[in-house]
Amino acid sequence: MEVNGRDYRTVWMEGATVYMIDQNELPFLFRIVDLHDYRDTCHAIRNMTVRGAGAIGAAAGFAMAQAFLQAPRNGRQEFMENARYEIESTRPTARNLFYATERVFLAGKQSAERAVIEAQDIADEDARDSRNIGKFGNEIIRDNYNIGTHCNAGWLAFVDYGTALSPVYQAHRSGKNVFVYVDETRPRSQGARLTAWELYQAGIPHVIIPDNATATLMSQKRINLMIVGADRIAANGDVANKIGTLGKAIVARTFNIPFFVAAPSNTIDPGCSSGSEIIIEERGEEEVLYQKGIDRNGVQHEILVCSPGSRAYNPAFDITPANLVSGIITEKGIINANNKDIMSLLGKKA
Amino acid sequence: MEVNGRDYRTVWMEGATVYMIDQNELPFLFRIVDLHDYRDTCHAIRNMTVRGAGAIGAAAGFAMAQAFLQAPRNGRQEFMENARYEIESTRPTARNLFYATERVFLAGKQSAERAVIEAQDIADEDARDSRNIGKFGNEIIRDNYNIGTHCNAGWLAFVDYGTALSPVYQAHRSGKNVFVYVDETRPRSQGARLTAWELYQAGIPHVIIPDNATATLMSQKRINLMIVGADRIAANGDVANKIGTLGKAIVARTFNIPFFVAAPSNTIDPGCSSGSEIIIEERGEEEVLYQKGIDRNGVQHEILVCSPGSRAYNPAFDITPANLVSGIITEKGIINANNKDIMSLLGKKA
Repeated sequence: MEVNGRDYRTVWMEGATVYMIDQNELPFLFRIVDLHDYRDTCHAIRNMTVRGAGAIGAAAGFAMAQAFLQAPRNGRQEFMENARYEIESTRPTARNLFYATERVFLAGKQSAERAVIEAQDIADEDARDSRNIGKFGNEIIRDNYNIGTHCNAGWLAFVDYGTALSPVYQAHRSGKNVFVYVDETRPRSQGARLTAWELYQAGIPHVIIPDNATATLMSQKRINLMIVGADRIAANGDVANKIGTLGKAIVARTFNIPFFVAAPSNTIDPGCSSGSEIIIEERGEEEVLYQKGIDRNGVQHEILVCSPGSRAYNPAFDITPANLVSGIITEKGIINANNKDIMSLLGKKA
Repeated sequence: MEVNGRDYRTVWMEGATVYMIDQNELPFLFRIVDLHDYRDTCHAIRNMTVRGAGAIGAAAGFAMAQAFLQAPRNGRQEFMENARYEIESTRPTARNLFYATERVFLAGKQSAERAVIEAQDIADEDARDSRNIGKFGNEIIRDNYNIGTHCNAGWLAFVDYGTALSPVYQAHRSGKNVFVYVDETRPRSQGARLTAWELYQAGIPHVIIPDNATATLMSQKRINLMIVGADRIAANGDVANKIGTLGKAIVARTFNIPFFVAAPSNTIDPGCSSGSEIIIEERGEEEVLYQKGIDRNGVQHEILVCSPGSRAYNPAFDITPANLVSGIITEKGIINANNKDIMSLLGKKA
């Protein structure tokens, strides 16, 4: 996607160097970091310089390829096994990460060059899947639609295009007028910080709203369509996604507003029969109690925004039951959120 | 209510001096300001040193009484009419404010002393009504209940006790175990800042949650009862309250969680037939874009927490339809949110 008139991916590799947009500095500073050692790439995954399912997977694949390029002739196998362990320890709950390391590790058994090609393929496939999600998702967007979204399932979370935002970009490119209501997405505010930044860069009209404002906008029919991403989709169509998704899905149903989930088919976990099997990660209370930002002089601060002495509770995800999901926009087409359609998409028996 | 082992009201008058808790400094600093001129009290209402329906009304009554004490023998009437105009211009949408200035203005025609007594009466009535709301509300709270609330309808918003929190205080005092889930209430975070501060002072177990987390807690039946305040109640029982109330009411209904509104009967506007007649105030986008707080050294900062270049939309209230309200807890008892019960409460024909 374009930033300051130049095309970027979230993460990419040239020669033996991995490059990525430093998402810890966004939205206040756009900076590319270059990583010359697989251990530096590991560190960048761990400290969330790169974040988001697809982008983490691609970065892990590149780290694996870097390790092959760095591996000594003697003790090559031990070096690579250590490297794989290090890479897989960075964000141990990210499914895409293991998928990528596995593929690049196998390819690397032939040669380091094959490992690099495999890692590039993984990134290219992620970008292609995201672009296809945009193509199919664009079919449900009409001219002059106001679209609501939650959190950031834009290109920054993937290699390019994104999932929930990919149909929006495609609609915009195809000449439709679209307007996006961007949920702030407390506590980490990925909507207000990353989705808003992406849309601003792309020149797509949008406005940030407090999460509390979604219901009143829906009640006034000012949102025509909701599209969100997914962290994991169960075999029955239940969707785990950023905290707040469930409430918005319930309110959308109440006001008959279509509520779509956009995700590549590798987000579906056929081994997970329903949302009740998904364990919800609880994150630290400091994400609620403190906020980071810049003052009017551009100086960064982290400030306490809650009453001192009080604790906070911070569940990171929630489960939206399949019956609240109007459809799942995948790279292969839009399907209903039910076991039969999901298994058919995956080429498996229901 | 008690702060640091001493009993306080939000605003009070001794002699010719008005005292109030400086709510602009909360929750980071507890400070009492003393105001010796009615113009200083006006300024304190305008800059939100005091906020909340009942507390604004009481402060306006005291300001009016101060003006009578300050009025010169010559030109007394002109002085008082100017003073009234000044006081009523501070927060022109606050209904309680006009109610209070009217009452004290009339009483002051007899004497300045009568004006002071009237202003004290208004404050006492507010505190008594709030206490009675607590008494009636306590009847629906069972031992070991987890109670959810939104925004701050605690004693800081009134003279004492509060509305939504008054039943919680009463339950706690009567020996019941209660636990409160405190919605952050973006954008102004009155839950995380004021409600959490009140509950911490009162020693009531609680935790701050992002507004996005309410739905998942409700889906897990971890909230037994919701109690919120109201800014205005229409004759049919529709409730205008802080943005976010509507969404939480819809989700509560979905999971069969009782959703009560606590408010003194003077919050009901019999001249307003339904919520659709209530105009929703839109506030400045800077409340969404910026946040205030203190860094780890206790230094205050105001920081940008959203992507630079993006705008925000900030509706301050929403309308919850009467059919989502389980009941209205008033100083005279709990009533159903319908026109018949409301008119009967007000002693009027439906």
